[in-house]
Amino acid sequence: MSTVGKTITCKAAIAWGPGEELSVEDVEVLPPRAHEVRIQLYYTGVCHTDAYTLSGKDPEGAFPVVLGHEGAGIVESVGEGVTSVKPGDHVVALYTPECGECKFCKSGKTNLCGKIRATQGQGLMPDGTTRFRARGKDILHFMGTSTFSQYTVVADISVVAVDPKAPMDRTCLLGCGITTGYGAATITAKISPGDNVAIFGAGCVGLSVIQGAVQKKAGKIIVVDVNDSKEEWAKKFGATDFVNPTKLSRSITEELIAMTDGGVDYAFDCTGNVQVMRAALESCHKGWGECIIIGVAAAGQEISTRPFQLVTGRVWRGCAFGGVKGRSQLPGLVEDYMEDKLKVDDFITHRFPLSEISAAFGAMKQGDCIRAVVDTL
Amino acid sequence: MSTVGKTITCKAAIAWGPGEELSVEDVEVLPPRAHEVRIQLYYTGVCHTDAYTLSGKDPEGAFPVVLGHEGAGIVESVGEGVTSVKPGDHVVALYTPECGECKFCKSGKTNLCGKIRATQGQGLMPDGTTRFRARGKDILHFMGTSTFSQYTVVADISVVAVDPKAPMDRTCLLGCGITTGYGAATITAKISPGDNVAIFGAGCVGLSVIQGAVQKKAGKIIVVDVNDSKEEWAKKFGATDFVNPTKLSRSITEELIAMTDGGVDYAFDCTGNVQVMRAALESCHKGWGECIIIGVAAAGQEISTRPFQLVTGRVWRGCAFGGVKGRSQLPGLVEDYMEDKLKVDDFITHRFPLSEISAAFGAMKQGDCIRAVVDTL
Repeated sequence: MSTVGKTITCKAAIAWGPGEELSVEDVEVLPPRAHEVRIQLYYTGVCHTDAYTLSGKDPEGAFPVVLGHEGAGIVESVGEGVTSVKPGDHVVALYTPECGECKFCKSGKTNLCGKIRATQGQGLMPDGTTRFRARGKDILHFMGTSTFSQYTVVADISVVAVDPKAPMDRTCLLGCGITTGYGAATITAKISPGDNVAIFGAGCVGLSVIQGAVQKKAGKIIVVDVNDSKEEWAKKFGATDFVNPTKLSRSITEELIAMTDGGVDYAFDCTGNVQVMRAALESCHKGWGECIIIGVAAAGQEISTRPFQLVTGRVWRGCAFGGVKGRSQLPGLVEDYMEDKLKVDDFITHRFPLSEISAAFGAMKQGDCIRAVVDTL
Repeated sequence: MSTVGKTITCKAAIAWGPGEELSVEDVEVLPPRAHEVRIQLYYTGVCHTDAYTLSGKDPEGAFPVVLGHEGAGIVESVGEGVTSVKPGDHVVALYTPECGECKFCKSGKTNLCGKIRATQGQGLMPDGTTRFRARGKDILHFMGTSTFSQYTVVADISVVAVDPKAPMDRTCLLGCGITTGYGAATITAKISPGDNVAIFGAGCVGLSVIQGAVQKKAGKIIVVDVNDSKEEWAKKFGATDFVNPTKLSRSITEELIAMTDGGVDYAFDCTGNVQVMRAALESCHKGWGECIIIGVAAAGQEISTRPFQLVTGRVWRGCAFGGVKGRSQLPGLVEDYMEDKLKVDDFITHRFPLSEISAAFGAMKQGDCIRAVVDTL
């Protein structure tokens, strides 16, 4: 029996309040309105950003909410005016939308779309309402995606169709971590062959930066992590060197400058730690080295350095979602995966059913977890 | 009688110690050694960097020293192996040398030459000695130029010949302030027609940034200065708007974002104040706005911001000498001046003979002084 136009009752993991454990329970998912898409989710990744908001440390976090932003599934139905996807399409949800019409999209300089930013930040659909109900209450959306659910509704600019042959337990990870790192290296940075690169933090994002650096034919690809077990991971993805800064007799900045005859051409922060962001900048080569901040810092934290670092030619920049335009560029990344140019399978170290999603959060805090995939079916 | 090969005794302003008044007295200037050039200086500008080092606040300042780095004159003699200039050439001294051979020069990415950096920083010629003597003591060089003297000796990579028809009381100012601002706008920044620009600080450097922005056909050129008398100056050089941040009911950042529908495309700090550097960054447009730090901060001062500013696409960079390669590009700026494309005459608000150089330092601290030129003859 068709569900089109009807409210669907399914399971979702609801965050009722900051710091509370997720509750997997029935949720009503309303039909999509104009320019909205209802997706049956098959898989979702679990990311540090979800844990950050759940913890209550995110000052913009609002509750109750369905978290999750790394989701893949199949379009169940579409609202009026939707032309970019159709029922049956295999899709990835996009927390960075792409409308193609706003000042940002038209600039050609950024992947940050401005069209639905205000409502997305408030946990609402573009018309200012929500499509989730549970226990008789409205439940908020998260990052425009809310993938910790069997069904979700997103704006049509927040979803992209990808190759249906690509397994969805892999494509879901292209919704955030892998794309963020790979894009930072291949789109935000302008790595030239032979350039030396340092990557701080060898989680999902950092390992993906390695892949981008390898693709761009970087010279030294130096991974910095305080966890020695990450050396094997880093080397497997193509790192040439691994440094554990806690085991050095000098600072990591001095070490990297010595290893690269003056500093790296590009340094990537994949930790969210503001002290690491400073070390990354100051490890860059005088005259041209660029530090790219990818990690998300805790609320209120600030980065600092002496301005002399910039006056002598270093550049401090950052990116969100790797600088990747989701609707224009994500299908190409899926193709790269299908053609064995982009590793995705290797990232999946843990799997859980939706009913055990809290265990996925627990696993994420362990050093041996790169990515936990949750089966939402 | 030729002075070639002989020590020349002339007048120089010697800084005997930090915080002491400059002493104009006899100095012996030794002949140039291999790859060195002795210049008879005609004019020198006085810049805040000279005052900073003289004050003793510069932790790398060493004494006794001949300060000064904005100098124009005529080559008196050259040492062995010098081919780039010859006696009689009209020249400008370059505190940012250009060897064309080092990793930096060959990179094509920066104007920071590394060839003589170590000795220049120590106040020595490349062979580790000095060419100045006074009261029986060696006197140090400064920034590889030491222009507060009737004669100086510089490395051959620290000097460039320019059009002899250009008046030297003007070309001396191309040795630092004007080139720094103009280059920051035309070489370091990539201003496109219609881009909105904010310039913090309307001294010699800031006014020169305006000229560069005008040349690049910027849209709004907004000058920010706490001194209302700078409005007339800013408008004369082509600014479209002037804002005194002390007279606003909201922050300068909020003001600029409102004036430009989201923030400026480029913000230039020409103040050296680290709080201003932050305001400049945070006034940039999300997604692509770039803040370029030109001003030199006091020792130990640091810049700070939330990393979110960078993750959402703003870029923090800086430049020295505007990113201009002195030997390759300065002659072109002199031509721009000769063809009335670059204002220089207007900057000169004060003139002093070398004997009254301390008065030039006093004038510089007044708001009505843009540039004081000292006649060293």
